[in-house]
Amino acid sequence: MAEKKLGGAGLRGQSAGSTALCTVGQSGTGLTYCGYDISELAEHATFEEVAYLLFNGELPDAGELSGYKERLKAFRGLPEPLKICLEQIPADAHPMDVLRTGTSVLGNLETEKNFGEQQDVADRLLGALPSMLLYWYHFSHNGERIETEVGDDSIAGHFLTMLHGKEPSADHRRCLDVSLILYAEHEFNASTFTARVCASTLSDMHSCVTGAIGSLRGPLHGGANEAAMDMIEQFSSVEEAVEGVKGMLARKDKIMGFGHAIYRESDPRNAIIKQWSKKLGAEVGDRVLYPVSEAIEQLMWDEKKLFCNADFFHASAYNFMGIPTKLFTPIFVCSRVSGWTAHVMEQRANNRIIRPSADYVGAEPRSWIPLEDR
Amino acid sequence: MAEKKLGGAGLRGQSAGSTALCTVGQSGTGLTYCGYDISELAEHATFEEVAYLLFNGELPDAGELSGYKERLKAFRGLPEPLKICLEQIPADAHPMDVLRTGTSVLGNLETEKNFGEQQDVADRLLGALPSMLLYWYHFSHNGERIETEVGDDSIAGHFLTMLHGKEPSADHRRCLDVSLILYAEHEFNASTFTARVCASTLSDMHSCVTGAIGSLRGPLHGGANEAAMDMIEQFSSVEEAVEGVKGMLARKDKIMGFGHAIYRESDPRNAIIKQWSKKLGAEVGDRVLYPVSEAIEQLMWDEKKLFCNADFFHASAYNFMGIPTKLFTPIFVCSRVSGWTAHVMEQRANNRIIRPSADYVGAEPRSWIPLEDR
Repeated sequence: MAEKKLGGAGLRGQSAGSTALCTVGQSGTGLTYCGYDISELAEHATFEEVAYLLFNGELPDAGELSGYKERLKAFRGLPEPLKICLEQIPADAHPMDVLRTGTSVLGNLETEKNFGEQQDVADRLLGALPSMLLYWYHFSHNGERIETEVGDDSIAGHFLTMLHGKEPSADHRRCLDVSLILYAEHEFNASTFTARVCASTLSDMHSCVTGAIGSLRGPLHGGANEAAMDMIEQFSSVEEAVEGVKGMLARKDKIMGFGHAIYRESDPRNAIIKQWSKKLGAEVGDRVLYPVSEAIEQLMWDEKKLFCNADFFHASAYNFMGIPTKLFTPIFVCSRVSGWTAHVMEQRANNRIIRPSADYVGAEPRSWIPLEDR
Repeated sequence: MAEKKLGGAGLRGQSAGSTALCTVGQSGTGLTYCGYDISELAEHATFEEVAYLLFNGELPDAGELSGYKERLKAFRGLPEPLKICLEQIPADAHPMDVLRTGTSVLGNLETEKNFGEQQDVADRLLGALPSMLLYWYHFSHNGERIETEVGDDSIAGHFLTMLHGKEPSADHRRCLDVSLILYAEHEFNASTFTARVCASTLSDMHSCVTGAIGSLRGPLHGGANEAAMDMIEQFSSVEEAVEGVKGMLARKDKIMGFGHAIYRESDPRNAIIKQWSKKLGAEVGDRVLYPVSEAIEQLMWDEKKLFCNADFFHASAYNFMGIPTKLFTPIFVCSRVSGWTAHVMEQRANNRIIRPSADYVGAEPRSWIPLEDR
């Protein structure tokens, strides 16, 4: 029996360590990275600046930032054996399985030999994950071996250039950049905690990130933006959406993209991405997705007092940029890898192996029964 | 701040859930699987019988056991795309990275579509992990593409037949079989806990096992048997070993294979594997490895009151069977995958997402500083 019996499954509300990276639901609008409020970061920062902040605890100056962006840009190429592995994965694979596999393969080819290399591995993954995803995507779907060392010096621009085969508009690039900022870090969520448990055995960085991708894949964690899209695009008008969602509520169907394990009144990321969804929708002359999304938001509040989380308006915003729904959660990976790797470094700097106890609820001690007597 | 502040880093002694699979340090010799003492299982059971027990909670009858062994045997073949991926991994890769990658690739090719397939995936991994490891090993080291559907109907026999290209002796097969039993399950250790955190997001089985392999790779978790071997084989006599280890103790070097996070007086697995090491050593006419191991065991007890854990005599026992040291921890995977997958099924059956809190120790709230003012 565990020495200390605790109420509440899932370790909810129980401290599993300390962090200097993030607060959730404590001050400002409810989410801070290294003391900076998410709303200020989403307004002023670039994603690369936020990644630098998470790794270094302070914002870069102009020289540090341009150096860091050049560094990340240099990490976009994929080694030939990794490309061959990605080419073995069929088009109907789960894209999260592709990123989990690509990260794991890279760990064989560019193994982290000691913790002195941890920042190199983190930056390499930040540069290479979009390349892995879109190399596999174009090869498996179109038989095309794309060039991955393309695009401007932002990860958002790199991603959209590879996806569409041309440079994105300034608004699209900035919207994806903001999205990457919103998804970069979120304290001891399940995927980050997976990375920290793995790190606590003093395993390598690729193992930690591989494990984290596997956890983010779960529908209770990542994946809500994809599920929200699947729901929203069923409806061709506001009226249909209101009818449809009322029916879902009556049938007690789970409606994805609402509520949060920690936030109680609102998710501070929602207002930011909602504004971007509205802007991009107007640009493409949308008269369905955004109004439908807004109507569902209103209905869920009126009927259930449930608020949109970060994922809900991400669905339409990504759709307006021509991003296929199956790539939504993988974009989350391309961003959150900054938070995961920063947490791994933090765990390593002050480590004790994470090894909880369990309450035993099984059979009493019993004696062996020979096979012939069973 | 976490709502409940708990002493002790690493969640030590704190319950993170319940299990019916295992007790550690509670009754009998200190380790039970589903109520059966490890010493009885190691004496009477086969590994396949233990895996069946972990999955079903009860021992199989004769028909169930032979059916289960046939089923596992049928899962030894590797799909061509997986072989191609394994062939991309160089000989100097960490073999744990190879298993992590092979499992992840398999998840793309044979994705668990729903939880109704969970036993199939678990059994497939039990059958295929030794194949993946030894296919890669022979290809990368000898350029040879081995046949993996060989050997008798035991996983131990399968492993040794693929490794050496011939059927093992009865003693070697049984020793490895016992070793697989000893390593099969150990409650909420870090790799199993990794699998459960991943499972708690309702992710797929391959993600859970991929993450667990990554955690077992860490030197604070798996890997102690390899480190023990590296130390033991430095010494060519008992006298040299005693001198050498005394020097290590004086220099406060870490000596691997001793002590345990939970056991306080002895590790019940040690006496079992020690006996096997002695037996196999006698068969090959060893006059160094076993006596050196025994002398180190005595010295560590006399000087430090530290006992051997499961890993220490595994080193010499595996060595006597001609197993290369770098494959020691991967064998642990081939066994523990039974415990991991059983825990995933248990987590899924009564799930709440595992999402602890953290104590914030970072910067106070602060305002954005424009790039030009930094």
